[in-house]
Amino acid sequence: MEAKENGASENAGRVMDGPTNPMVTPLLTDLYQFTMAYAYWKAGKHNERAVFDLYFRKNPFGGEFTVFAGLEECIKFIANFNLTEEEISFICESLPGSCEEGFFNYLREVDCSDVEVYAISEGTVVFPKVPLLRVEGPIAVVQLLETPLLNLVNFASLVATNAARHRLVAGKSKMLLEFGLRRAQGPDGAIGASKYCYIGGFDATSNVAAGRLFRIPLRGTHSHAFVSSFMSPDEILERSMCSSDGSSTCEDFVSLVQSWLNKIQWSKSLSGIFGETNQSELAAFMSYALAFPNNFLALVDTYDVMRSGVPNFCAVALALSDLGYKAVGIRLDSGDLAYLSSEARKIFNAVEKEFGVPGFGKMSITASNDLNEETLDALNKQGHEVDCFGIGTYLVTCYAQAALGCVFKLVEINNQPRIKLSEDVSKVSMPCKKRCYRLYGKEGYSLVDILTGENEPCPQVGERILCRHPFNESKRAYVVPKRVEVLLKCYWPGKSDKVREELPALKDIRDHCIKQLEQMRPDHMRRLNPTPYKVSVSAKLYDFIHFLWLNEAPVGELQ
Amino acid sequence: MEAKENGASENAGRVMDGPTNPMVTPLLTDLYQFTMAYAYWKAGKHNERAVFDLYFRKNPFGGEFTVFAGLEECIKFIANFNLTEEEISFICESLPGSCEEGFFNYLREVDCSDVEVYAISEGTVVFPKVPLLRVEGPIAVVQLLETPLLNLVNFASLVATNAARHRLVAGKSKMLLEFGLRRAQGPDGAIGASKYCYIGGFDATSNVAAGRLFRIPLRGTHSHAFVSSFMSPDEILERSMCSSDGSSTCEDFVSLVQSWLNKIQWSKSLSGIFGETNQSELAAFMSYALAFPNNFLALVDTYDVMRSGVPNFCAVALALSDLGYKAVGIRLDSGDLAYLSSEARKIFNAVEKEFGVPGFGKMSITASNDLNEETLDALNKQGHEVDCFGIGTYLVTCYAQAALGCVFKLVEINNQPRIKLSEDVSKVSMPCKKRCYRLYGKEGYSLVDILTGENEPCPQVGERILCRHPFNESKRAYVVPKRVEVLLKCYWPGKSDKVREELPALKDIRDHCIKQLEQMRPDHMRRLNPTPYKVSVSAKLYDFIHFLWLNEAPVGELQ
Repeated sequence: MEAKENGASENAGRVMDGPTNPMVTPLLTDLYQFTMAYAYWKAGKHNERAVFDLYFRKNPFGGEFTVFAGLEECIKFIANFNLTEEEISFICESLPGSCEEGFFNYLREVDCSDVEVYAISEGTVVFPKVPLLRVEGPIAVVQLLETPLLNLVNFASLVATNAARHRLVAGKSKMLLEFGLRRAQGPDGAIGASKYCYIGGFDATSNVAAGRLFRIPLRGTHSHAFVSSFMSPDEILERSMCSSDGSSTCEDFVSLVQSWLNKIQWSKSLSGIFGETNQSELAAFMSYALAFPNNFLALVDTYDVMRSGVPNFCAVALALSDLGYKAVGIRLDSGDLAYLSSEARKIFNAVEKEFGVPGFGKMSITASNDLNEETLDALNKQGHEVDCFGIGTYLVTCYAQAALGCVFKLVEINNQPRIKLSEDVSKVSMPCKKRCYRLYGKEGYSLVDILTGENEPCPQVGERILCRHPFNESKRAYVVPKRVEVLLKCYWPGKSDKVREELPALKDIRDHCIKQLEQMRPDHMRRLNPTPYKVSVSAKLYDFIHFLWLNEAPVGELQ
Repeated sequence: MEAKENGASENAGRVMDGPTNPMVTPLLTDLYQFTMAYAYWKAGKHNERAVFDLYFRKNPFGGEFTVFAGLEECIKFIANFNLTEEEISFICESLPGSCEEGFFNYLREVDCSDVEVYAISEGTVVFPKVPLLRVEGPIAVVQLLETPLLNLVNFASLVATNAARHRLVAGKSKMLLEFGLRRAQGPDGAIGASKYCYIGGFDATSNVAAGRLFRIPLRGTHSHAFVSSFMSPDEILERSMCSSDGSSTCEDFVSLVQSWLNKIQWSKSLSGIFGETNQSELAAFMSYALAFPNNFLALVDTYDVMRSGVPNFCAVALALSDLGYKAVGIRLDSGDLAYLSSEARKIFNAVEKEFGVPGFGKMSITASNDLNEETLDALNKQGHEVDCFGIGTYLVTCYAQAALGCVFKLVEINNQPRIKLSEDVSKVSMPCKKRCYRLYGKEGYSLVDILTGENEPCPQVGERILCRHPFNESKRAYVVPKRVEVLLKCYWPGKSDKVREELPALKDIRDHCIKQLEQMRPDHMRRLNPTPYKVSVSAKLYDFIHFLWLNEAPVGELQ
C-alpha cells in the first residue's frame, strides 16, 4: 500500500514509523488548539509544564468494562510530531493576520521531545475515570496533541470493546469474522475496525487492506452476485479436475456433480426433500469448486436454502470428496439462521450416513445477516448449528452506541493541581498528577483500581489499604491485595531517563486482551445488570480533591 | 499534508488525482472480490459485461430523504484504479497456493478503462431503490470495485443527510459549526464528516486538516483547559495593547478590564447580580483578548456562567471596545442553554444601554454541549438566544443511526437482466440496465422518480406518464410533468464516446445540495411523520420485473 510505504520512507532515520494513516498529521486537530497555542505563546506561558489525563466517564454499550485500544497509533503520532513548512503556512493563513511571526518560528521547533507519556498497556480492560494516558509537557504542545489523541483512542477503544462483547456472547469455540468494510464510517473507520476487532477477540477480517497492514488473517469466498452471474452448467467449458493427490483426473466434473445431485434427489434418507434445484446456482457452485477445490465454501441462500442451496452444495461437496478434496461448508446470509443451520446440519449428518462420507456432518456453517450482540444472544437461546459468524455493520459502526466519550483534562500546571468543576458530579475532573494501580484478590480476580498522588508510596501486597470513592464520602473499603499491578507505564519518556516500554506486536496485544477479559469476575462482564467495577482514590488524594473543590466552587446565594 | 502531496505526485501525468485518503487502494476491498475474480477468470468469464446498481433501501434517521455524497471520491478511485506489484504479491499470498500464475498476470493489466459509470450528481436529494451509481464493465473488475464504492458512498451520504437534517431544524439564519473530530470514528471518519457536513449545509469546521484539504472555513477559540491553566491576572506580564486604529496604546489592559469589572459590579441596571468573579477565568479572558483583540470569543462556563463567565466577558469586551475593537461573543458548553443564552442576552442588552455601547446587545452566542436534532428542536420550542451551534459527537458519528445500508446488485450480465429475489419484498432487486428521471409538477416541486429500461424513450414534458409502484400492482398514478430531469449522468465513460461530466468544486456541490433541499415539498422533509416520496417504474419495466420474478421464484409445496 502506497500510504504505508510513503509513511515509512518519510520516517527514515527516525526511531519509529508514523501512524498507519498518513492523514494523521499535526493538522488533524481542532483549530482552537492553535489559537490557544498562540495565546499561550503571546503570554509567555507556552512552556509551562502541564499534566493532562485522557479518560472516559462511562463504559459503553450499557456494560461495565471497556477495552483500551489505540495506544500504538498515539505513540507513533507523538514520536513523529512536527510541523512541515507547508503546514505552518496553512496555520498562518488560518489564524488572524495580527498574529506575530515569532509564533510561527516557535512552531517550526515544536516536537514531543520534552513530552512524557504514561499509559495503560493496549488491550487492557479499563474503567471510568482511570487515566488511559497521562501526558505531561509544555502546555502549548500538549494541547496540540489533545484532539488527535482523543480521535485515535475513542473509536479504537469503542470498537475493541464492541468486539470483546460479541466474543463474550458468541463463546470461545466460535469463529468470528469481521465483515464490516462496506458499511464502516469511511476507509479507515473500516481499517481501524478490522485492527481493533482483532484485538477484541475476532479471528479474521474480509478487509484485504487491513490484512496487509496488520497481518490479520483474511476470509472470504463469494457473493450473491457471483451466483446470479451464471445461467446454467452449460456455460462451464473447462470441466476437468485433477484429484487431490494428483494421481488421476476427472474429465467431466459437471457430470460427476450432476450424478451426485441425482443420487441426493432420489436418496431414501433424504426422500422427498429435494426437487429441482436452481441451475444458475449449481453452475456457480461448480465453477467455484473448479477454481478452489480445497476451499469450497458456498453461499446457499440466493434462491432457497433448503430446496436449492443445500442440495446443490452437497452434490458439489460429494463430487469433490470423490476426488479426495474436503469441502469447507456453507454460508447463510438471510432467513431464520437458527432453523436453517439446524436443518442444514441434519442434511449433512444424513448425507454422511447415507453415502458413508466421514466428517460430512461436521461441515462448517457460517452465518452473516446483520448480526449483533442481541441476535447472537437470541440464537444461543434458540439453539443453532452455526460454527462461524460473519459480523459487519453493527460491529464496525458500533451501532448500539456510536461514540465513546473520552476527554482530556488539565490536572496540574507548574506543579499546581487543577480541578474542573461541574454541576454534574460525574463531570468533575480528578486533579493532580497521579499514579494508578490495580489490586487483585486471593481468587486472582481484580478487586479495585486505586488512584494516588504521584508522590505517595506504591500499595504493597498484604498491606491494608483504604480505598475511597472519589466523590461519595460514605463509600470506602479496606483491601488487602494479593497482587498489585502498576497500570500507568512509560511509553514516551521525553527528556526523562525512564526506560520506554516497547510497543508489542498486534498478536501480543490481542493475547493480552483475551487474557484480561478472562481474568475479570464474571458478574462485571455479563450482559444484563453487570456489577460496576470499583475505581477508588487513596485517603490522601480524597482529602486533597475535596479541599480543592471547596476552594474553587463558588458559594451560592439563595434569593 | 503529506498524504495528499504524495497522492498527487504519484498521479502525475494522470487525468485525475486519487482519493483524498491514500489508504483507499484496490486492496480496500473484501477478500471475496478477489476469490470471485479468480473463479471468473478460471471459468473464462471475467470479461463478461455486467451492470451493477448501487442503491439503498431505506432512508436514514426515520426520515424520507437522503443526500447523496461520496461521488467525487468514487470517481477519483476509479480513475486511478490499478494494482501495484506489491499489492499483487499480497493477493497471491492471500489466495490458496493452487491459484494459477495467469490470474496474477491478468491482475497486472486490470484498470477501469473499460468501465462505464453513470451517477446522480453529488449533493442531490435521493430516495430508496433509485440507483445512485450504475457501474458497467467486465464483471471481475466491477466486483473488485463493489466494496470500496460502497464504503465511499455509505458514510458520506449518511453524514451529509445528518447535517442536512440538523440544518433543517436549526433554520437558515443560524451558523452551524462541525466540532466532531475528537469523537469521530477514526481520523478520516472525522475528515469525511467535515467534508460531507459542509455539503449538507454546515458553515465551518474545527478540523484543521479538513480545512486545509477541502478549503472549508475553520472556527475555534479556546477550551476549559485554557481557562484553568491561568491562576490570576498577576501572572500577565505583557499588558499593553495598541488601539484598533493604531493611534494609541493602552499601557495596562489588565487595569482597564478591572475598572470595567468594577463598573459592572456596581452598575444600577445590573445591580446585585454580580459578586466576585473567578480570577483565573478573568486572567484567561484577558490573555486571550491580548492575543486576539479582533477575535475575542470567550468560553464562559468553566466556573459559573452568570456569576463569573458573563461579567468577566463583558468587562474584557468593554475594555476592548474602549480601544476600538469589537468582541465577537461567548460560548456556552454546559447547563440549560435556552435559559443561559436568554439571560446572557439580557445582560448584553443591559450593558449596551447602561454604558452606551452600540451593538453590544447583538453579541454572538455559541452553544455546544452534546447537541443533536432533538436538542435543537427542544431549544426552538423553549425559545433561546443562540446564534451559532457547535455540533460534534451526534453529528459526525451519526449516533441516531450509525450506518446507511447501500448495496451493490447485479442487474444485467451479457445483456441478460438478473433479479435477486428475497422473501422480504423490500430486498428484491430491480433488474435491467435502467435510466432514471425525476418528474416535476407545476409548483416546481418534484413529484416522483421513475425508472425505465435503458431503451425506453425519455419521458417528455406535457406527456401523460403512467408511474407504477415496482412491487404493488394496485399503486399507480398518471403524471404530466412540467419538467423532466435526467438523474443518471456519465461520470466515467470508459471506452464509450460519451462526454464525461466534470466533478464540481465542493462549494458548488454544497450550493446544489442546499438548493435541492429547498426544492423538496416540505411534508417530505418534516421531522415527524414525513410523507414518503414516490419512486416508480415505467409500465414496461413493471411488466418485465414481474415476468422475471415469476420465472425465477421457486414454486412452493405445502406439506
